[in-house]
Amino acid sequence: MSCSIARSLEVIGEWWTLLILRDAFFGVTRFEELQERLGIARNILAKRLDTLVDHGVLERRCYDEARGRHDYVLTEKGKALWPVLVTLRQWGDEWVVGEGNQPVAMVHTSCGEQTTAVLTCDHCGEELQRREVRVVAGPGLDDPAMLPAVSRR
Amino acid sequence: MSCSIARSLEVIGEWWTLLILRDAFFGVTRFEELQERLGIARNILAKRLDTLVDHGVLERRCYDEARGRHDYVLTEKGKALWPVLVTLRQWGDEWVVGEGNQPVAMVHTSCGEQTTAVLTCDHCGEELQRREVRVVAGPGLDDPAMLPAVSRR
Repeated sequence: MSCSIARSLEVIGEWWTLLILRDAFFGVTRFEELQERLGIARNILAKRLDTLVDHGVLERRCYDEARGRHDYVLTEKGKALWPVLVTLRQWGDEWVVGEGNQPVAMVHTSCGEQTTAVLTCDHCGEELQRREVRVVAGPGLDDPAMLPAVSRR
Repeated sequence: MSCSIARSLEVIGEWWTLLILRDAFFGVTRFEELQERLGIARNILAKRLDTLVDHGVLERRCYDEARGRHDYVLTEKGKALWPVLVTLRQWGDEWVVGEGNQPVAMVHTSCGEQTTAVLTCDHCGEELQRREVRVVAGPGLDDPAMLPAVSRR
C-alpha cells in the first residue's frame, strides 16, 4: 500500500508501541522504568524497542559502556510524532475518558494558559474543518482507487 | 490505566481499525467495498466493524431492510478522530513515504490552497511547539507516576 497512514502504522500501529512513545515523550528513557510503568513483558518490550530503533524512531544512547547499558531517546523522526499523540490524547479525553476526567492537561508555556491543540491551515491560518478539506491526488499516488469515493465522482 | 492515550488505543489501537476509519473518512460505507479496498479477511473485517460499532465510532444504517443490508457510517465520536488520521498521515508523508511521494494531499477549500495541518493553541492562536508545552495533572489523574518525569521533579 502506498497510503501514508498504512505505512505509518507498520511503524507505530500497535498498542504498546504508542504507549512506549508516550512515555518517551514523558522523558522516560530506561528499559527498567518503561517496563515498570507499562507493566509489559520484558521480551515484548525488548522487541518493540528494537522495532522502534530499526525504524529510526528511537535511538540507543550508551550511558554505561562497561555494562552495555543505554537510554532510549526519541530521534527527530520520533519527536515528529508528537502531534499524533496530542490529537489522540485529546480525542480520548473528550470521547473515552470524558470531560472532567482528563488525567493530564497541557499548559502552553509561551502564553501561560491551559491549551487544547487545534488543527489550522499552514496557508491561511484558519482552523481546519473536515468539511472544508478536500483530498486530492499527490505525486506518489499509484492507485487512484485509494482516493475518497467523493473525489473520484 | 487512566491515560487517555491508553484508553483510546483500546478503541482504535490496531492497524486494521485505523485503515477502516481512513476509508470511512473517504466515504466508503459498504462491507464489500471495505473488504475489497483493504484486502482483509471477511471475518476479521466483521470483527473490527463490530468493535467500532460497539464503541460508538461507527453506526449501522440500514439501506435494504428486506435483505438486512446496512452501511457503516461515522458517528460524531468517529468524525472526531479526523485530527488523529491527519497528523498520522502527515507524519507518514514526511518520515516514511518521503517528500515528493505523498499519495494524497489536502486542499483547504475555504482558502483554495494546498494545506498542511499545524497544531495551534486554542488560547493564543500560536503554533504549538513541543518544547513550549508542559504536561500537568488533570482532574482525573489517579496516579501521579503517570506524569512526565520532568513534571515530577
